[in-house]
Amino acid sequence: MDFVRRVTTEATPDFVPATDRIAVFDNDGTLWPEQPICIQFVFAFERLKSLAHVHSELRTSEPFRTVLEGGLNILMTLGTKDIIEIIKVTQSGMSTEQFSNIVAEWLASARDPRFGRFYTDLVYQPMLELLDYLRANEFKSFIVSGTGADFIRVFADETYRIPPEQVVGSTTVVEFRLGEAGPILMKMPEVEVLSDGAGKPVAIDRFIGRRPIFAFGNSDGDKEMLVWTAAGSGPRLVGLIHHTDAKREWAYDRDSEVGRLDKALDLAGAKKWTIVDMATDWNTIFPPQDAVETG
Amino acid sequence: MDFVRRVTTEATPDFVPATDRIAVFDNDGTLWPEQPICIQFVFAFERLKSLAHVHSELRTSEPFRTVLEGGLNILMTLGTKDIIEIIKVTQSGMSTEQFSNIVAEWLASARDPRFGRFYTDLVYQPMLELLDYLRANEFKSFIVSGTGADFIRVFADETYRIPPEQVVGSTTVVEFRLGEAGPILMKMPEVEVLSDGAGKPVAIDRFIGRRPIFAFGNSDGDKEMLVWTAAGSGPRLVGLIHHTDAKREWAYDRDSEVGRLDKALDLAGAKKWTIVDMATDWNTIFPPQDAVETG
Repeated sequence: MDFVRRVTTEATPDFVPATDRIAVFDNDGTLWPEQPICIQFVFAFERLKSLAHVHSELRTSEPFRTVLEGGLNILMTLGTKDIIEIIKVTQSGMSTEQFSNIVAEWLASARDPRFGRFYTDLVYQPMLELLDYLRANEFKSFIVSGTGADFIRVFADETYRIPPEQVVGSTTVVEFRLGEAGPILMKMPEVEVLSDGAGKPVAIDRFIGRRPIFAFGNSDGDKEMLVWTAAGSGPRLVGLIHHTDAKREWAYDRDSEVGRLDKALDLAGAKKWTIVDMATDWNTIFPPQDAVETG
Repeated sequence: MDFVRRVTTEATPDFVPATDRIAVFDNDGTLWPEQPICIQFVFAFERLKSLAHVHSELRTSEPFRTVLEGGLNILMTLGTKDIIEIIKVTQSGMSTEQFSNIVAEWLASARDPRFGRFYTDLVYQPMLELLDYLRANEFKSFIVSGTGADFIRVFADETYRIPPEQVVGSTTVVEFRLGEAGPILMKMPEVEVLSDGAGKPVAIDRFIGRRPIFAFGNSDGDKEMLVWTAAGSGPRLVGLIHHTDAKREWAYDRDSEVGRLDKALDLAGAKKWTIVDMATDWNTIFPPQDAVETG
C-alpha cells in the first residue's frame, strides 16, 4: 500500500501516470496452486483419457501409452518433448472456439482431488484482493505464464477480472480457414512454449511493449521477469510468493521439481524484494466456499 | 454512430458489454498515409544512409548498394527477402530502448516531402475523432499492422492515444541479456513479419484473444481481418477507407502496388460494409497545422 500510495500521489517525484502502471503476474503458483502438478496438465491428462476411448491407437503409441497406464504421476516425469506431444494431441485439431468450450466445460466439472473444489475456486484470495486493489488504483495487470494463453483466457476474466488481451502465455500455431460455416481459426499441432526465465521479459516486450513497475512470481522461472521489472528507473515493487504452508496449501521451494524457488529466493533476499510467507502472512488462502458449494 | 448506439444501449438484444467492445484498425493507409511508400521504409532508408557513412562496406554489398544508389524508389521494388535484410541492418543489434529512442528522434525531425509536415502530424483527423468517439463509448482499440510493433509503439500513444500493449505488429526476435549496466533486451537480426491477409486474424487471436466487433482497414491485406470480424454473432461494423482524393492525399485502389484495394472492395460492395470515400466523406484529411508548425 505504501508503494501504491507513492506512485499514485501526483506532483511527487515518484508519481507514475496511470497509463504506465503496468503490473505482471505469473499464474501457476502465484495466482493459483501448481502442486502436485500444473492444472493444464491435469486437463491434458483427463482429455487424453477421454480421447483414448475413441482413438484406441493412443493406447499403444508412446508417450501416450505410458501416461495412460501410469497416470498423472508419470506425466510429471516426462520431458518437454513428450509433454508437447501430449499437448498436440489433446489441444489441437479443433477451432479456437471449440477449444475454449472444452476447457470451460472441464473447469465447470473437474475438482481438485485434495480440496474437493473447482480449480477456479482455488485461487489465492489475497492475490484477488491485490488485483482489485491495483485495479482501483488504475493499474493494468497482465498474466505472463508458461501455461497456454488460451487455457488461462477461458477463466481469467471471470476469476481474476483480467481480460483475454491481458493474458500472455504459450500458444499453438493457429491457421485461418474459410470453412462452409464461415471463417474459423484452427489450432494446429505446433506449440510455441513461452519459456520461463528469459522468455518472460521477452514476452513482456512483445505483448506489452513496456516495462512493468510491479511484478509478482513464485519460482526461479520468474527470476528474469522480476530482474527486468526491478531494473527500471523510478519506484518498483517486485515480490515472490513463498509456499510455506503444507497444511492449508503446499510447502516447497529449493528442492521442488514443480515451481522450484532457489536462486530467485537468494536474489530476493539480497535485493530486499518482497517475500510473502504464505503460512504467516496470509489469513486466508482460498475464497470461502459459497452456499452452492457447501450445500 | 447508429452502430455505437445499438451496442451501448443496455437491455436491448444488440447490447455488448464494455469489456467486449474490441475494435481493430490497420495502420498504414487506415490511420496515416502509406503513399508513395510505407513510412517505416522511409525510416529504414534514411537510417541505412546514416549507417553507410560509418560502415562503408554497406556501399559495396547487396541489396544495400542498390538501395543507397537508387534511393527510395528502388526500395519499393525490392522483394520481401531484401527488405528483411534492410530491416535487419537498420533495426537490430541494439537494445529495444535504443531503438525506441532512434525512432523518436527521427520522427521529431523527418518531414513528409510532399506535405512538408512531421509524419505524426499527418494522421487522418476523422480517424482520430473516430478513435476518440469509440473511447468515449468504452471501446478498446487495437492497431493490427504489418509494420513493426516497436516502430508504431513509439508514437501511437501520443498520436492516437493507443498504448503500446494495444499495438500488434511485426517483431524482431529479442534476447534478454544481463549486461554490466543491468539487464537489456537486445533486438536480434531475425524478423517475424506479421503477414497481411490471414496473418491478421491469427494475430488477433494470439494477442487479443477474442473477436473484435469493429474493424477498419483499407487494402486487400485487411480482407481476412474484416471477414473474421464480420462473421461473429451479434452486431458488427467493418469498414474500408477508399483513397479517392489525389488532391488532398492520394488516389489509388485496384492497380496500386502499395495498399492495393481490389478484392476487399468487391467484398465490401457485396456485403454492404461501410466504405469511406475520402474525397467526398471527409471534410478534413489531416489535423490543422498549429502555430508552431506554420510559424
